[in-house]
Amino acid sequence: MTTQAFTPEATQARIQHEGLRSKIMTAEQAAELIQPGFNVGMSGFTGSGYPKAVPLALAARMEAAHAAGKPFRVGLWTGASTAPELDGALAKAEGISMRLPYQSDPTVRNQINAGGMFYSDMHLSHVAPMAWAGFFGRLNVAVIEVAGILPDGRLIPTTSVGNNKTWLDIADHVILEVNHWQSTGLEGMHDIYYGTRLPPHRQPIMLTAPHDRIGEPYLHCDPEKIIAIVQTDAHDRNSPFSPPDENSRLIAQHMIDFFQHEVKAGRLPANLLPLQSGVGNIANAVLAGLNESPFNNMTAYTEVLQDGMLEMIKSGKLTFASATALSLSPEATQYFTTHLDEFRGRVLLRPQEISNHPELIRRMGMLAMNAMIEADIYGNVNSTHLMGSTVMNGIGGSGDFARNAYISFFMSPSTAKGGAISCIVPMVSHTDHTEHDVQVIVTEQGLADLRGLAPVPRARRVIEKCAHPDYRDALTDYLDRALAGGAPGKHTPHLLQESLSWHQRFVQTGDMRKKG
Amino acid sequence: MTTQAFTPEATQARIQHEGLRSKIMTAEQAAELIQPGFNVGMSGFTGSGYPKAVPLALAARMEAAHAAGKPFRVGLWTGASTAPELDGALAKAEGISMRLPYQSDPTVRNQINAGGMFYSDMHLSHVAPMAWAGFFGRLNVAVIEVAGILPDGRLIPTTSVGNNKTWLDIADHVILEVNHWQSTGLEGMHDIYYGTRLPPHRQPIMLTAPHDRIGEPYLHCDPEKIIAIVQTDAHDRNSPFSPPDENSRLIAQHMIDFFQHEVKAGRLPANLLPLQSGVGNIANAVLAGLNESPFNNMTAYTEVLQDGMLEMIKSGKLTFASATALSLSPEATQYFTTHLDEFRGRVLLRPQEISNHPELIRRMGMLAMNAMIEADIYGNVNSTHLMGSTVMNGIGGSGDFARNAYISFFMSPSTAKGGAISCIVPMVSHTDHTEHDVQVIVTEQGLADLRGLAPVPRARRVIEKCAHPDYRDALTDYLDRALAGGAPGKHTPHLLQESLSWHQRFVQTGDMRKKG
Repeated sequence: MTTQAFTPEATQARIQHEGLRSKIMTAEQAAELIQPGFNVGMSGFTGSGYPKAVPLALAARMEAAHAAGKPFRVGLWTGASTAPELDGALAKAEGISMRLPYQSDPTVRNQINAGGMFYSDMHLSHVAPMAWAGFFGRLNVAVIEVAGILPDGRLIPTTSVGNNKTWLDIADHVILEVNHWQSTGLEGMHDIYYGTRLPPHRQPIMLTAPHDRIGEPYLHCDPEKIIAIVQTDAHDRNSPFSPPDENSRLIAQHMIDFFQHEVKAGRLPANLLPLQSGVGNIANAVLAGLNESPFNNMTAYTEVLQDGMLEMIKSGKLTFASATALSLSPEATQYFTTHLDEFRGRVLLRPQEISNHPELIRRMGMLAMNAMIEADIYGNVNSTHLMGSTVMNGIGGSGDFARNAYISFFMSPSTAKGGAISCIVPMVSHTDHTEHDVQVIVTEQGLADLRGLAPVPRARRVIEKCAHPDYRDALTDYLDRALAGGAPGKHTPHLLQESLSWHQRFVQTGDMRKKG
Repeated sequence: MTTQAFTPEATQARIQHEGLRSKIMTAEQAAELIQPGFNVGMSGFTGSGYPKAVPLALAARMEAAHAAGKPFRVGLWTGASTAPELDGALAKAEGISMRLPYQSDPTVRNQINAGGMFYSDMHLSHVAPMAWAGFFGRLNVAVIEVAGILPDGRLIPTTSVGNNKTWLDIADHVILEVNHWQSTGLEGMHDIYYGTRLPPHRQPIMLTAPHDRIGEPYLHCDPEKIIAIVQTDAHDRNSPFSPPDENSRLIAQHMIDFFQHEVKAGRLPANLLPLQSGVGNIANAVLAGLNESPFNNMTAYTEVLQDGMLEMIKSGKLTFASATALSLSPEATQYFTTHLDEFRGRVLLRPQEISNHPELIRRMGMLAMNAMIEADIYGNVNSTHLMGSTVMNGIGGSGDFARNAYISFFMSPSTAKGGAISCIVPMVSHTDHTEHDVQVIVTEQGLADLRGLAPVPRARRVIEKCAHPDYRDALTDYLDRALAGGAPGKHTPHLLQESLSWHQRFVQTGDMRKKG
């Protein structure tokens, strides 16, 4: 939608700073301000709050340059994943030289795995401090979506905060997208903390519960740095969720049984501890299960507010949710925006350096529930790679939460590809979470509590509780032969010539199982 | 040395609580109070401050039981590594069923790798909170070395703090060893923080610089729980350090060049940031190098105070060092104990949950310098395992520091075993620090700065800067063939049938290099 479509009244209502209204231009004009070789910091986290017009115009500019035989690529830094109009469009234009810190776009993923784009997969809590420290070089321009601009120039954030504060602070120049689709009712639902510093000037972050406010509702930006304002009226990605399948429901049930057991044993309070939940259908199923469970007065301190958590707030089971972004289905988005007052005071969106901060996660003691691609029998977890070489999405915040959680859970169905892949393997083909950071593994088969166990008892338990019956004997056989003397040592016994052979067999035959 | 050897005056001077003096007994009598199947929490961290009499008496008791055909094993929890009189003796008696969280004793290591003892290798910052939460079961008895007991029952800690506070708090019963060898001048050089809680009751830890005092100089223990007091006069392990060899000096020089470069680029303050340094000869060489460097007014916030740091304090280069333990050579110990007043106000020993706390490490922004066994070309680091299966020592605090550091460094000579092992490999045989947690790799060949790089550029840089020339071509060949199409994807290209073949070749032939 072009700038012409907005009435002066609508424009003035959203852009209340008079001086800044003089910087309104079209997306195409704004994209002209982005040069080849720039590092560009964009808003956006799990398909929420990303700029929706400038990236498309930039992609067109890149395609035109490429057609004229001129190179045009940029480094692209975001909060996390975005949407087809951003990651997808820029990747299709072959315009991204380097991507960080997280992506989940199919075009981006294909280019990375084809060797056509560099990708630096990072802990989401590392991004802002390392960018501030200058470890990634200069940030030439930031492109940030906002819901509005106050008369004094402060900015109303939208459906994600991500790294917006950081990009606005460190970028040489700023392009704003004012999105009229974003509800003005979002005003006041953010908590932007301006107390972060580089060492040796860092101070304690005085947040002790998910509902604590430690910042302010607005983003700041020096108006001198703002070189363009583009108006849009375009919705977030809002991917639909599938209803929980049988495996997800079983995983959820194992989790809830475990929580009940831990409460009974006095190792968890009756209302549990703040929930962190990764994105996706299994996570949503667990939240749906918790919504039907006997637990009450729960809270969440997490990256992303999904449908499942929204339902828990609606039902009253969840009293408060802190996140850095929404990631809602179209239906849930509709409900949320038309019932904002129901959620006011029960939802806060924060910068991702705060939502994912190890200080705060360790302090509050999360129950960290994240999906995985595979785990090995010793409890190492692969969250990012298929068959050792191909990156799927990225580690995201799973490491921030797993390492610092009260208890860290990793969940997956026990098999994939119709049984051709076992998600429990002798050795993971890539390690994202080491044995030291994984306390509980859950599949539809069961739950393996690994706390306090040495590697071999861990392996017995993972095989017994989590592996699919089709793979159980082969895993036990591997462990037994390694223990019987095939391995150089019996602490973490591995048969090095076989440890990745399941993956290799899948690459060669499309099935981890031996034929015949 | 038996109890009889201590005069009443010496005993009264060390054990000022009258009621507790009635609990003095021999080590043999105290060991009788430890039953088979107990979990025993002992003091001790890197050969400092461990009990020196009761473990030997317990080992004798175990050997007698075993000779009589009776089982006698205990779970052994400590701060970190101890010494032959503790780990060595109990392992020799085959008396440890389960060991956590760290060890470096040859007898213990051999038993673990022979499958005769279970070992749970843990982040040192995880131990106290998880033990408090009850994740490892009940702690039946604590055996803690102290330097003295005040009239009101408070305890003067010795040369390490480790998990002593936690064991004293959670154990059902407590046995104290009062060691007359430990200098009474240590009184006042500890900072025991009693503000930790289980969630949801945790509060910010108000420490912002290495010299901050947030606790008190003494350990507390309910006198009712104390069932025995044993007097000793026995020195700490105090292993000698070898003088820095040529490789260590080269590694140190690369580090110092890098620091100078970073200061010049404005990414580090002129006096650097708090140093964390792992134990061992490379670490000491780096500290010796820093002591000769142009940097001044440095500080340290680390686990262990080694000879190198002591020298830096003596020279005035290091203004303050916070640690949880001393790990000094006999000569440095002698100097330290006879010049304690020189170090008073410049050294503090804290509980390991504070020395290694992610909140504090992230806040203060350490330069985390740790040794490694091997790194792979993509920047994953193995700190614990030989050839995938055999555990060496353990992860210790390296993960606490690397994950939360301002910059994390991993250091190793580029080869081992006279060149038969390359410390840069296609794929690590065990992962302790993932690519996300490793910013800089250093060998005597050079320093690879991996910040902001994607995996393939990282691999090129690690091979160029860090690999030994004897292995460089083979590593490049692996990478090139993987990129040329051998790997299923080009993000982290691996040839699965080859990725661990170097380790396998070493197991089979004693050399990673191909013959002929």
